[in-house]
Amino acid sequence: MVRNFEQINRMFNPQSIAVLGVSAQGFGFGRGILHSIMSVGYEGRLYPVNPKGGEVFGLEMHPSVEAIPEDIDFAIIAVPAPAVPAALEECRKKGAAGAEIISSGFSELANEQGEELDRQIREIAAKGIRVLGPNCFGIYCPKSGLTMAPGGDFPRKTGPVALLSQSGGLSIDFVSMARWRGFNFSKVVSFGNGCDLRETEMLEYLRHDPDTQVICMYVEGVEDGREFFRVLRQTALEKPVIILKGGLSESGGRAVASHTASMGGSDKIWKAALNQCNVVVAETLKDMADAALAFTFLPRKAYKGMTIVGGGGALGVHGADMAELAGLATPLLREDLREQIHAILPKPGSSANNPVDIANPFTPPRIIKETVMLASQDEAIDLHLIIQLLYMYKANVGIMNAKDVTEIIPLQDFISEYRKAHEKAGKPIVLALPNNRQERESMEVEGIIREARYGLTEAGIPIFDQVKDALQAVAAISRYTERRQAMLG
Amino acid sequence: MVRNFEQINRMFNPQSIAVLGVSAQGFGFGRGILHSIMSVGYEGRLYPVNPKGGEVFGLEMHPSVEAIPEDIDFAIIAVPAPAVPAALEECRKKGAAGAEIISSGFSELANEQGEELDRQIREIAAKGIRVLGPNCFGIYCPKSGLTMAPGGDFPRKTGPVALLSQSGGLSIDFVSMARWRGFNFSKVVSFGNGCDLRETEMLEYLRHDPDTQVICMYVEGVEDGREFFRVLRQTALEKPVIILKGGLSESGGRAVASHTASMGGSDKIWKAALNQCNVVVAETLKDMADAALAFTFLPRKAYKGMTIVGGGGALGVHGADMAELAGLATPLLREDLREQIHAILPKPGSSANNPVDIANPFTPPRIIKETVMLASQDEAIDLHLIIQLLYMYKANVGIMNAKDVTEIIPLQDFISEYRKAHEKAGKPIVLALPNNRQERESMEVEGIIREARYGLTEAGIPIFDQVKDALQAVAAISRYTERRQAMLG
Repeated sequence: MVRNFEQINRMFNPQSIAVLGVSAQGFGFGRGILHSIMSVGYEGRLYPVNPKGGEVFGLEMHPSVEAIPEDIDFAIIAVPAPAVPAALEECRKKGAAGAEIISSGFSELANEQGEELDRQIREIAAKGIRVLGPNCFGIYCPKSGLTMAPGGDFPRKTGPVALLSQSGGLSIDFVSMARWRGFNFSKVVSFGNGCDLRETEMLEYLRHDPDTQVICMYVEGVEDGREFFRVLRQTALEKPVIILKGGLSESGGRAVASHTASMGGSDKIWKAALNQCNVVVAETLKDMADAALAFTFLPRKAYKGMTIVGGGGALGVHGADMAELAGLATPLLREDLREQIHAILPKPGSSANNPVDIANPFTPPRIIKETVMLASQDEAIDLHLIIQLLYMYKANVGIMNAKDVTEIIPLQDFISEYRKAHEKAGKPIVLALPNNRQERESMEVEGIIREARYGLTEAGIPIFDQVKDALQAVAAISRYTERRQAMLG
Repeated sequence: MVRNFEQINRMFNPQSIAVLGVSAQGFGFGRGILHSIMSVGYEGRLYPVNPKGGEVFGLEMHPSVEAIPEDIDFAIIAVPAPAVPAALEECRKKGAAGAEIISSGFSELANEQGEELDRQIREIAAKGIRVLGPNCFGIYCPKSGLTMAPGGDFPRKTGPVALLSQSGGLSIDFVSMARWRGFNFSKVVSFGNGCDLRETEMLEYLRHDPDTQVICMYVEGVEDGREFFRVLRQTALEKPVIILKGGLSESGGRAVASHTASMGGSDKIWKAALNQCNVVVAETLKDMADAALAFTFLPRKAYKGMTIVGGGGALGVHGADMAELAGLATPLLREDLREQIHAILPKPGSSANNPVDIANPFTPPRIIKETVMLASQDEAIDLHLIIQLLYMYKANVGIMNAKDVTEIIPLQDFISEYRKAHEKAGKPIVLALPNNRQERESMEVEGIIREARYGLTEAGIPIFDQVKDALQAVAAISRYTERRQAMLG
């Protein structure tokens, strides 16, 4: 189905890259992407091209693509729009499997000149070179060391998530949001106006890509709806597909036209079609990142019953309410377990019913671990949500005569006890780790939260900002799994 | 209508306070609240009570309430539950207008002993002393220097927002969330089990309180639904009331019973009743804080049309979509203004349609200010949303050869230009200021974001984390204002 799986593979894993439109000075896109690729540590051969020759970042500039001393696998084109077709043709002649065109000034301008340039690009692509863009940020592929500009500090660590996006800025954002959530990428592809390669073919490629287990997409418009939804349905049966659809409103649709020259399409039709394909629909980019985190960290099953364990009665109440909205139950625990949990909780103020109220946010992590281990024995429980209010320690600095909050938060205890719970409870754990102390004067609390998030994520526990975020993400897995089973009959 | 407005006022503004149940050492609640009140800088007279006498934080302990050398205005009771009724009776005899009972171990235990203690407290209250609690955190009143434990570092700055909450932990959280959002409080009241003073009477009090302009409530259950909704409807006609209702789900309702001994009630009935009263319903505490921020900072009007100004095409598209979902339009700007805006925007990649795409997140703040000033001339525009991606600068540190990101973000420019825009545009500005770089290694970005938030908030511009948060909050004002006008006929 993919016109040429191997050819696209070569684009993602090039041994040699030409970068066209690199200025020796300044902050142009061509120079920016060259810098980014070098910073990320790409190990292949890089050929910057500038008719004036000279040097950039210690590399020799080549006066033309033709002058490069070998055939190239991939080209990054950042010359002004009118010069793009000729540049692309040069790259094709030089044997490139594909090119990404970073330049903007094409059909998104909605004028004749722009349309004509797009048409010329398509003509050249039809002769064999595959094209991403124009008006895009191209490829980030940590395995091969290919990255976007700005993406010079993107991680080289690979992971199971792919992103397919019409927007470059959104791709940058999504990679940024992934890095502290703790999931990594197989491939990120921004295809902008999508003159040649775009949603359907790339989705089919990712469906076959063994490195990709979860597919995220930002879609503004599609070229061939029928074909797209056919491939989407097939793909979603094999791998979860999470989609953020932009331009469903009237003015959003108008913005889409000037952004990537796409048609937004009707809200209702889109929602119905995505639902039929068993797509996980995200309302915001943050929701998409949270869902990708959950799908990366948690086993795919239909979660039904859960415990909510945390300090603060109201947060437990809120958690149970949000769980029910998300289709998850918080059932009363089995009586014998309830008694055992009640015995270890601080008193008064605690409750061993589910939600489990641990009385106050300073309850030792060991007790929370034991609570989770006990609750795991209940057959009605599939998952545990711990609500951890680390920032609450800040208020105790004064009365405990501490230097600062880092002195009184047993951070390593939390990490090691929860790691044990994760390893031994036999049921997945997710954490809500909000920071409600974000004033300028409490940066040290943020530091602790980030250390905790890092340590717990490394231990295999997915961390969410808010209770609602965690529950929505878990619910997405349940729905996806159940519907997939039903569709497979 | 309030049984005794002046008496309740005396509770909030006491000249003398007895604190019962203060241990000389350790981390008990009584000692904690005394420490908090002293830290906040309460200027009245404080009388810690402990039968053993001795000293605490340099204050003399009194062996009993009776032994205090003057009558008291207010009492804070933190003795064990069985000793509470006798302690309360002592305070009543000592002339106290009211007391807050911090201790837990009452009707929330759902046993006979707990119920009996509650009954005794009600009996004593009926003789004239007004009671908050038991099982509560009591009062935070920055004007008088009264605070909760833990709340020893709560601000003394007063503001127009009141919070009325059955949960103490949630009160602490809400004050924490307010402080970096930049709004402040007239009064915060946590009333726990609510043996005497509770939702209806306190709401009526806040309705008459000249220091309170916005009322937030966390409600688990109400004592007298008919009377509560009558007062609520009346209050919401005068001041916006934002409510987070806990315990609407089955298991949430069960949690409510063991948290504050309340009945959760039916989801549908609650929603319908709150809607009839024109209450702003918050789904999460974060939503309530965002709504309170908007009501504090923005004029109350029915916002219809808005501009969305920001870097990144997809974010503009997303903003327009979210705006429409929230009932706000993002209309195409008047042609002459569009032309003028287009003339000042960087090219290519920008768009002067609405949403206004500023091409990249590094567009100088002066250009954004001018865009906003121009767009303000369009009669269809009531409000501006600026989406500011400060964290994007981080990726430029390498290519710009900067020491770190603080060197390349024109932070003071942003603050001063947006301040000018706020002062001169004649239409309100709200900002979405997300931080998508929350990895451990980018703490300096967080530092900048917090400085920006502080500076802009000081300038009168409300700041939200996410685009959706900002739009939901603005939409809440529109809906409230329109419905209020309709109800007033």
